[in-house]
Amino acid sequence: MPRVIKSPEIRSAELLDCAQRLFFERGYDNTTVNDIIREVGLSKGAFYHHFASKEALLEALSARLARDSMAELQPMLEDPSLDAIGRLNALFAGSRQLNVELAPQLRRTFFVLFRPENLALFHRVDLAARELVLPAIADLLRKGTEEGALDVPDPEAFAEMLLQLRLIFRDVTQQALRQAELGQIEEAAQMLDERLRLYGIAIDRLLKLPDGTIKAVQPGFSRAFLEAG
Amino acid sequence: MPRVIKSPEIRSAELLDCAQRLFFERGYDNTTVNDIIREVGLSKGAFYHHFASKEALLEALSARLARDSMAELQPMLEDPSLDAIGRLNALFAGSRQLNVELAPQLRRTFFVLFRPENLALFHRVDLAARELVLPAIADLLRKGTEEGALDVPDPEAFAEMLLQLRLIFRDVTQQALRQAELGQIEEAAQMLDERLRLYGIAIDRLLKLPDGTIKAVQPGFSRAFLEAG
Repeated sequence: MPRVIKSPEIRSAELLDCAQRLFFERGYDNTTVNDIIREVGLSKGAFYHHFASKEALLEALSARLARDSMAELQPMLEDPSLDAIGRLNALFAGSRQLNVELAPQLRRTFFVLFRPENLALFHRVDLAARELVLPAIADLLRKGTEEGALDVPDPEAFAEMLLQLRLIFRDVTQQALRQAELGQIEEAAQMLDERLRLYGIAIDRLLKLPDGTIKAVQPGFSRAFLEAG
Repeated sequence: MPRVIKSPEIRSAELLDCAQRLFFERGYDNTTVNDIIREVGLSKGAFYHHFASKEALLEALSARLARDSMAELQPMLEDPSLDAIGRLNALFAGSRQLNVELAPQLRRTFFVLFRPENLALFHRVDLAARELVLPAIADLLRKGTEEGALDVPDPEAFAEMLLQLRLIFRDVTQQALRQAELGQIEEAAQMLDERLRLYGIAIDRLLKLPDGTIKAVQPGFSRAFLEAG
């Protein structure tokens, strides 16, 4: 059989697809670079030509997931039938839907990514996601302020603050996942729901909206995220 | 001369005092464990009995600085002549004063601590500071809500959010220090002042206070912090 020559982009995408499948099936720790190259049919040298390490592969994978999520959420951020508040609520609703659809994979990814020894990796992944999302949120806040739907003194700085605040969910989600592992799903779901509700109120207040305007949580979301299999 | 036997606490404190002086004089990178034990007159084995590494020493030093700062700021947090808003403003004023008094040392410490390769160290130092400060802030928010001076739905969670938001100053301070190093003190001071002003407004809004109530910045602070030598 003749050797198939593929472009570097196609090879990278194949490696990412394969890694995603194996990480999600077996977990990150239980997947080796050897497992991945065996499945894809590449040499170790060829693998390291694309990715410096297994960590670099996970980082690229997370960036791709962030890009894909952003592509799904973009229409909500630009929906001409909605004002800024409607768009923010549509963004949260869309994000919840994605979180439930991808729950089993996300739970496993978060479990790896939120570990103390993966702090540097988490930080890089967060930076990638932040760079992608920040301009869209700042734009939304700018337009919302111009339209009088909300009120921030500095759209860029306030967009950064909203994104900074969401990092509280690194510890909170980790705690909920641990509780859920111990079978305490109800307590975990209640705790996560409540923290999401308070995050929504914090956003309301930062944007000068009445408490309860931005719906960061909906009944049943946390339970569905923690249980969906 | 007879060998002087000192208690482990006194030895640890001596090592911390010496390390603090050397780190502040020469910088963290330019100080070795050998430098420190030579000055204190201890063997390497004895040093590692107290601290597992130079990093562990810096972590202990940061925890001590946080404790000392907290001890200085505690009276403001408990001043019976002030309401919750007065206490928060006194806390920021006291913190600014400490920042200017210790500016040369703090600038050097931040320069080390905010480097990407020291992220894990920064995180541990921040956790130590957070554990120390969180209960005091939560208490202040609880009393302030009871007295009607401010209004938060959950003092613990909102205290966590205020502390989470302040982490924006990791990047912002690093940027200001870099600009100042390049001689652009005026631009750096203006940028830092403005970000502190916006942080103050964010706190106002989270606590349901009119914009401008909490004074996180005062004219001249950032310039003094960046220039004090």
